[in-house]
Parts: sequence; structure tokens; C-alpha cells
Amino acid sequence: MEHRVTVKPLGNEVACREGQALLEALREAGIGVESVCGGRGTCGKCRIRVLSGDAGSPTADELERLRRERAGDGLRLACQVVPRGDLTIFIPASSLTGNQRLQLESGLGSRDFDPAVRAYDLEVEIPGEPGDAGSDLLRLREALLRAGPLAEPRAIDIEALRALPGTLREEEGSVRAVLRGEAILGIIPRKRTPLGLAVDLGSTKIALFLYDLESGEMLSAHGLLNPQIPYGEDIVTRIQQALEGKDGRLQALAAEGITEGLSAMLAETGREKADVFEAVVVGNTAMHHLFLGLPVEQLARSPYLPATDQPHEVAARDLGLRLNPSAVVYLPPPIAGYVGSDHLAAVYAARMEERTGPCLLLDIGTNTEVALQVEGRVRCCSCASGPAFEGGGLSCGMRASEGAVEAVLLDPDTGEPELSVIGGTPPRGICGSGVLSALAALLRSGTADPGGRLLEGMPGVERGTEGLFFPLTQDTDEGTSLAVTQGDIREIQKAKGAMRAGIDALLAEEGLDPGDLEEVIMAGAFGTYVDPADALAIALLPPVPLRIITQVGNAAGSGARSMLLSIKARREAEALAERIEYLELSAYPRLGPLFAADMYLTEEAVAAAKGRFALGRKEG
Amino acid sequence: MEHRVTVKPLGNEVACREGQALLEALREAGIGVESVCGGRGTCGKCRIRVLSGDAGSPTADELERLRRERAGDGLRLACQVVPRGDLTIFIPASSLTGNQRLQLESGLGSRDFDPAVRAYDLEVEIPGEPGDAGSDLLRLREALLRAGPLAEPRAIDIEALRALPGTLREEEGSVRAVLRGEAILGIIPRKRTPLGLAVDLGSTKIALFLYDLESGEMLSAHGLLNPQIPYGEDIVTRIQQALEGKDGRLQALAAEGITEGLSAMLAETGREKADVFEAVVVGNTAMHHLFLGLPVEQLARSPYLPATDQPHEVAARDLGLRLNPSAVVYLPPPIAGYVGSDHLAAVYAARMEERTGPCLLLDIGTNTEVALQVEGRVRCCSCASGPAFEGGGLSCGMRASEGAVEAVLLDPDTGEPELSVIGGTPPRGICGSGVLSALAALLRSGTADPGGRLLEGMPGVERGTEGLFFPLTQDTDEGTSLAVTQGDIREIQKAKGAMRAGIDALLAEEGLDPGDLEEVIMAGAFGTYVDPADALAIALLPPVPLRIITQVGNAAGSGARSMLLSIKARREAEALAERIEYLELSAYPRLGPLFAADMYLTEEAVAAAKGRFALGRKEG
Repeated sequence: MEHRVTVKPLGNEVACREGQALLEALREAGIGVESVCGGRGTCGKCRIRVLSGDAGSPTADELERLRRERAGDGLRLACQVVPRGDLTIFIPASSLTGNQRLQLESGLGSRDFDPAVRAYDLEVEIPGEPGDAGSDLLRLREALLRAGPLAEPRAIDIEALRALPGTLREEEGSVRAVLRGEAILGIIPRKRTPLGLAVDLGSTKIALFLYDLESGEMLSAHGLLNPQIPYGEDIVTRIQQALEGKDGRLQALAAEGITEGLSAMLAETGREKADVFEAVVVGNTAMHHLFLGLPVEQLARSPYLPATDQPHEVAARDLGLRLNPSAVVYLPPPIAGYVGSDHLAAVYAARMEERTGPCLLLDIGTNTEVALQVEGRVRCCSCASGPAFEGGGLSCGMRASEGAVEAVLLDPDTGEPELSVIGGTPPRGICGSGVLSALAALLRSGTADPGGRLLEGMPGVERGTEGLFFPLTQDTDEGTSLAVTQGDIREIQKAKGAMRAGIDALLAEEGLDPGDLEEVIMAGAFGTYVDPADALAIALLPPVPLRIITQVGNAAGSGARSMLLSIKARREAEALAERIEYLELSAYPRLGPLFAADMYLTEEAVAAAKGRFALGRKEG
Repeated sequence: MEHRVTVKPLGNEVACREGQALLEALREAGIGVESVCGGRGTCGKCRIRVLSGDAGSPTADELERLRRERAGDGLRLACQVVPRGDLTIFIPASSLTGNQRLQLESGLGSRDFDPAVRAYDLEVEIPGEPGDAGSDLLRLREALLRAGPLAEPRAIDIEALRALPGTLREEEGSVRAVLRGEAILGIIPRKRTPLGLAVDLGSTKIALFLYDLESGEMLSAHGLLNPQIPYGEDIVTRIQQALEGKDGRLQALAAEGITEGLSAMLAETGREKADVFEAVVVGNTAMHHLFLGLPVEQLARSPYLPATDQPHEVAARDLGLRLNPSAVVYLPPPIAGYVGSDHLAAVYAARMEERTGPCLLLDIGTNTEVALQVEGRVRCCSCASGPAFEGGGLSCGMRASEGAVEAVLLDPDTGEPELSVIGGTPPRGICGSGVLSALAALLRSGTADPGGRLLEGMPGVERGTEGLFFPLTQDTDEGTSLAVTQGDIREIQKAKGAMRAGIDALLAEEGLDPGDLEEVIMAGAFGTYVDPADALAIALLPPVPLRIITQVGNAAGSGARSMLLSIKARREAEALAERIEYLELSAYPRLGPLFAADMYLTEEAVAAAKGRFALGRKEG
């Protein structure tokens, strides 16, 4: 007998044999779930949430590994679950293997397939005798008109025209014409198909997705660090560098990063650059401007105006992007100076307008974009959350990569920290979710108070020249110990206060309480890997039930992919951009007090501070 | 009392006082007519033709200077004419001064002024306070919509967008938007106007015309030698060079030539390159392809197929043309492999379709294009006339520039040659029209026979190691004598035979005799400077009355200028290109015999040879 397991957010349905462990069933179905202990319930990597159905009771191993999590949320280890009936489960992004993670967001966004770029098989006559034979282009156009229900092709790109006579003769007239709308972008041999590239151009990471635009199949996904990073980890520094004359270099580096990522995927799939006819690129407004070579001076100064908030189509060659020489780059519109097309793509992919109840979308990073949907209206704002969530500005901070502490437990008996390290290596530093996890643990154990103060005299708290700190290790590979310092806690408080203030401002503008929310969607790298329970524990999120929180991975990338595959998606996203209202927080009168209140680390302390500042739900 | 003088082909009307010489009246009206003798009737430069009205009888000086011309055609010297009533006169191109010559064709072509590029004065708000202020582009578009009855501007060129934020702030929002159709090409300060460039890209000479696209005024005209010439005087050599890998260099040189000519005009007029937003470029199909960077291999081999015979719009930056970074180049369609967009422009400018009777247009050069209009239909062909008309391949040949013999008379009494030299300097060589003139004189004096043989024993004929020759000088500056050799005559015969065969083929296809022609229009440099009487004397033209021959100068440039100034002109020329029928001479079955007959130098001999070859008017 088999049980059917519905897997969210991927949308798959998987069969599980009677007595079979869920982890095995998922793997048999090709769903890559993290696990390093061989299914013995000891590594704790394969966490899933059972949303409905009979999954039996947690084993002792599970309870041990999951004890720090709140009860009652259906959290389980997939290796320990043996379904007793049909189940519906949710796999958080952190439990999925690399490539699967990048694909995670395939559950989001449009499912339409109506790409801008299309190929048509043609037989083009190549006359041998002199006469009134017309030109190669004329005969190509005639063949196109014969080929099907096509509007008159109006224009051919100059690079496509340059290649036309040679390709026609090499292929003896049997070619494929690649069109984008009514424009001819190229002529390729019959055996090749046009490809497309979706790019989420992040300040830190560039995520790329390569598609076959004929089948709609994703051929490869790839991530790499933004090569602009040497010009500044954060976007403010990079803008400064641009203003000092490095704008051309930053533009070139963005293009090189995309080209490099593409090259890796082409090598992996055996495809050719000449077949990539279109790219869709989303990013925050600063990255968008730097990539397009637009000036950023007006963006860096109040009132923070983008040069454009319109969609654009630009020749790839005008951006130094080495795809097919005639390729076009489509850039969806940015929403405002600090809310980019990546956020538009995320809101679009999450289909926020279609959600029935009030719904919150958080795209967490150095800049955190927050969108709130109420009754089909979407309002958004941008919070200067700073680099702490990504490990920046912390005494032992590092990015979420191998060697980073990503979770911290305090032994309830001894108070000793237990560390979970990415890649299972000795710890080299602490990433954002690790610090958050540590802070939640310190709060739960009473080692830190709701104001964020480490309490001298509590077990483990030490005093150094820089003030109080809580050591996590005594030695590392490099010989230095890892610790959470009072300063680190302040950085996290500022980051979470800024973000939470944005959430609270949007809720207040709509006259809503957190309890009115029916869904909280966390997107972006940090939003995907942070433990939602930790985020609730330190009041980073407003008080909502854990069960309404979903983590969707790279929603911006998902939106970009939808737009690559569908003209309809582009038009829908462009229309959405026109309707999204933008709340400029720097002009929001109660932002200062809200931020001060939201720095507190428990809901009670936050609420008390709001009471003192006379901040509450806006009177309808 | 004043007489009104209507001046063709310029279209002006000039007042001439009673007793005033016509030359003086023309000069007072700003019409530059050549003359170096101070109006004494001795230089013979100011030849005009009186078409109607009482101009008195020719003076003795005139008869002396004009004796070699046929009588009864109204030929006069303007300095000797004193009008006795209203006159209509025609000034041949060769009688006009330099700049006037370039403007000559203003009598041709469309008079419409509806340029593709238009400027709109705008007030764009630049907000100072943070808020939902939108972007610079959004506010520009809103200002555009307010500015007038404009369709929604759909796109902005990436280079224009790059410049937008800076220009908006420098000009404090008071700017001019430059649009091309619905696309925004640039934002310029209020005090500047958009400029446009019309180019006739010849194999030998590049002619450029700079216009103010707001007023429609021509600001400057300029001509320069094509910098590709070091890669081959003729187009066949240049194509060969392109096939050997010099295509990129040839492309760059064409662009550099245009840029150089433009720079000279900008320096002269004090205008800026950044204000040139559009160029219209016409040229023969090989020049068109080399300039666009299109492959020429298929053009060089039978069946001589162009890559395109369609109109194109290409970003100037994609052609290496340094205008405004967003500027667009419009290229009208070539008609066939050896009939280019220059010929289309010439046919368009001459308004051949609107002529009532059968009409022939000759654009004479290394390649001579011939178009025949009959009852609104236009058919054309291309004749491989070779370089002889431009002085190439002749023993003493040179281009029509200073020091070139441009006309030869034989003294009827002594038989001594009298030379007319361009610039009045000692002769350095003989240009095409000079050789033609000499050949006509040799025929008239019986020194050469209708078969083109120099007759040994006739006065002046000498024999050298290379055969017979007729010396024109005994010494020159360089110490070598100038002569017309038997070989030179053969070259001219081949050239004129090829061209005449094309004319005869077109006439035969239409079932016409030369006597049916109502107008013969000679265009191009050679066609402008050659004496039509000489052209008739050696049977280069079919037998028509001299009075139906007009010389119109650079008709191709005129067509290009019309298209720069008018979208309607472009659409009309494109429609014309679709309708022009092309006769491929290399596939024309009777071409060989026609060519053989047309090498003869008198109409009697041509007709006799055609009779022998059984070539005649095609049977209806």
C-alpha cells in the first residue's frame, strides 16, 4: 500500500510505500533533501513540517534534535517519519540540497509559457541564376510569411543581418529564424534552439537560470558572488565608488559576472552563447542603475530618485553582455529608489494580489523590502536593515558558507553552547542566522534581557576590554575563539528594529494588527535559511503563529524566470508595478519612535515601549 | 524697367534691369555662376541655355567660344546676354560655383518637411522632498504628454537615459526632448536644435549635407574623397579586399569618412556633434554593404545577391558613427546587387514616375545605373561602364580636379588642339569629360573613324611603340606630354558601349525608339560635367535632341536630403523601390551583340551594326 505525500512548496506529489521512511521516498522521487547522518536522526538536517495527515509521533532522536523548536508546529525529521496515511508536508529551503534550493521557487510565479523569443523552421530558397531574385533578407521574410500566422516581420537586427548570408548558405537554406515580437534576432541551424537567461542581480550574489526557450525547460541554475564586491560589500559604498568615477568599472563587472555565470552553465550543458537571445535581469534599484550604466548621484541623495521606474529593453551588446550579438535584455521596472525590480519580481512571483487575506512579504537582506497586501492592494517600503543579517559588521561575522555557525543551542542543563556549522567543518565564523539563533537562545535562557543587554554573572557571560561577551568556542582552526558580543547584539537589534519598524509602519497605515495577517512570506537568502522560530523569538517578526510563515527562497529569481518565459507575465508585472504603492519611510513621521520600540527583543517589551511612545494601531 | 528671369533647375526667379547683363543679375540674386574673365566673354565658363524669351543674338565672342556646340539649342554665355523681355533659362551644373553646385539638386525631390526627428520644449519638475515622486523618466514622460498631441512615448534609448538625470538638473528642468517617432533619443538644452545629416556615400566621393531639423534649413554642404580609396579605386577591388579580411577596416573607414566630413561642417557652423540625431545614407549596394558591415561574398559572385534590399534603421553607434550617442541611421533600400539606394534616391528625386512622357535617367560613374520611365513604370539596369569616365585606365587619365583637361577643341583651320583645363592651370592629365570631348573633336575632324580607329596620316596623328596616338600637348609641368592614345579610345568605347547597351536594352524591352524619349536626365559627377553635345557626338547617348537633355548634378544626394527632411519621402521612396523593375543585364540574351554595336562612335555606324546583328526595336 502506498501513501500519497503532497510536497510544498514544490507542488510535487510523491508516493511512499507502507513502512518506508519519508526521506527515502522523497529521494526516490528526485527531491534532494539535506542529510549527512545516513537517516539515523542525528544530524538534524532533514527538517520538514507536517501540515496535515498522520505521521506518527516524533522519535526520541527527533525530540533531542528539535527540542529547541516550539512544539505543536508539526516539525519533524524526514528520516524519522513513516507515514501512516496521505500527508501534506512543507520542506523549508534550508533542508533542500543546492540545486533543488535554487529551483525551490518553481512553486511560485506564473506558469504561462509564451516567451518573447520564438523560433520558426524555414526553407529559404538560394537562387543560383542571375535575375530579379531579390535579396537574402527578402527571401527570408517571404519564407517567414509562408511559415505561419506571423505578423509581417518589421526589422532585423544589424548583427543578425550580418550573419544571414553566411548561415543561409552553410545550412543550404534550411534554418531556424529566431524572432522577438516582429523583429528578427537571428538565424540558427535547425538543430539548435534559442536559449534564455533569467538573472537576479543581487548586491552580494548573482543567481542565474538558463532556459531552453523552445521547450520551456530549465537547463541549469548557477550562483556566484557579485564581482563588484571588492568595490564595497554594501550598496552605499558601491554608489560612492561610482560617484568617484568607478561607474564604468562597476557596470563592466556586473556584465562580467553575468557572463561568467552563463559561461559556467553553457559549459555544463554543452550549449552555445550564440543561442542565448534574451535575458531578463532583476535587481535592486542601485544594482539596476549600475548595470545599465545609469547615473546614481540623484539616487544617493534625498529624495532618492531613480533615473527610471519604467521597463526597458536594451541591446545586450550595449551593456557589454556577451550573449548572441543581437540579444535583448528585458529589465522590469524598479518601484522606487530603494525598492527594486527584484522586489517587484518577488511580489509578482508570490501572487500577493491574489491572496485572500492580509499577507506580508519580506525580502530580507542588507536592504529589506517589505510588501503588505490587503484586499488586493499592495503597499511596500524599504528598510535599511544593514549588513548584520548577512554577517556583516559582526565581531565574528561571515557569510552563510562552509564553516559558518548557522544555529546555536544552549544545553538546558549545562548552559554549554552546541553549534551547527555549515558543511560540518570546524566553525570559522558566525553567519546571520547563527547570530539570530544564538540571540534567541540567550534570551530563552535569560542570559540576555529583552533590552538586549548581556547579564553579567549569568553562566558563560564574560567581560573583555570591549565589554561583555558570550563565547561560543574556545578555539577554532585559526586559533581565535568565536563569541557573541554585546556589540553584535546591538547590530542585530538595529537591523531587526529597522525591519520590524517597516512592517509596523505598513500595518499601521492599513490599520491592521499582526493578528490580522493570514500569511507571512520570507524570501531572499537570509529569509530562507533563518529559523522562523528564532525570528519570532527575538521579535524580528511581529507576533504571528509559526504555521502562517512560509519560506520561499529566491522569489525575485522566480519572478525573473516567469518573465523570461512569458510576455503575459511581463505585462502583468509591469501593471503591478504601476499599482504598488510606495511608502517612503524616511518621510514617515513616527519612524524614530517605532524603530526605538522595535529594537526590543520580546513582544512584551516592544509593546510596552510602543505604549510609552503612544504608538499603536492607527485609528480607522 | 525690369525683366523677370526664371532660373532652372534652381527654381528661382530673378529680376534683371533693362540693359543689365544676365550674369550680373544672377550674381546679385546670390546665384554663383562660374566666370574667370570678368564678363568679357572670353573664358566661356558662364554657359547657360535660354529656353524661352528674347535674349537677343549671340555676340561674336560667344560664337567664337561656343562654335563647337550645335546651333539652335539656345546656348549662350550669361555675361553676353542682355534680356529684352522675360526669360526662362537653364544653368548647367558645370556653370555653377562649388557650393551652388552641391545645392543644385534642391530643385529636385520632395519639398515636404516632416522630419522623423522632432524637438519638444518641456518643463520637467525636479522634486526636492522624499515621497512617491517617481523617476526622472516618469516625470519626463508626463511632461511630454502635457506638451502636446503626442502619442505615448514608448521607449528611451539607453544612452539618452544615461544622460537624462544630469541634463535635467543642469538645465533645472527646462529642456528640449528630441523624439524620433515614439522613441526618446535625447534631452538637450533649450537653446540647441536637433541636426540631421544626409550622405551620398560614393565609391569615390562622399557628399554630406547638414540640416537644422527644426527649421529645415541646410547649414552646410561638404564633399571629401572616400578614405577607402587606398583599398582600391574601384568597387570590385574593394570587395576583393573585404573578402581577404579587410571588411572591418573598410567599414571603419566609411564611418570615419562620414565623421570627418561632419566634423568639418560642425566646425564651420559652430554646431555640436551631440545634436546630430539622425543620418540618411545612400550609396551603391557594395558601399551600403561595406558601411553596414554586411558580407559581400554573395554580392561578388553570380547571381550577385545583396544581403538585403530592404530599408534599415541602425543605431549610429553600431556603425562606429560618432553622432549623438543615440542617433539613428536610416538607409533606404538598395534595388539590386548593382543598383543601389543611391540610384533609388536619384530616381525618387527626379520624380520619374510623375513625368508624362518616356524619360531616361542616367547616373554615370564606374557603374552606370540607367532607369527608364514609361507610363508610370520604372525599369532599371546597371552597366559595368568601368572607370574610364572618371579618368581611370586611361594613359593620361585623372579625376576631374585642378589641372585636368576637361574639354578639347581642334582649330578648324590648323587642327591644333585647344585645351580647357580645370582651375586654369597647366594641364596635368585628362579627365573623363576631357577624353570624351577630345574624341568628339577627333571624330568631327575625321581624325578618327566611326569604328574608333585613329587614322594614320591625318594631321596630328603619330605612331609610337604602343601604336597610334594623338598628342594634346608637347610638354607639361612634369615634362611628359598628354595624348589620346588608340588604347584610350578603346577604353572609352567599352565604357560607352556598356552604358549605351543598357539604355538600348531598356528601350527594347519597352518597345521604344530613342525618338520616343521626351527627357534624358544626366546625374552624377560625370553626368553633370560632360558636355551633352559631346555625349551625343560619340553616340554615348541615343540620338535625341539636345534640348531634352538636362543635367541635374547629385540627384542621389538630393534624394537623401529629401528623405532626411521627410518621413513621407522615405515611405514614397520605399514604395518606389518595391515597384522599380530590375533588368539583370548579365542574363540579357542580346547583350553581347548590343554591346558590340554600341561601341561604334556614330549613330549611323551603330545602326548599321545593329542591322547586321539583326537587333532592332522589339516587336510589340
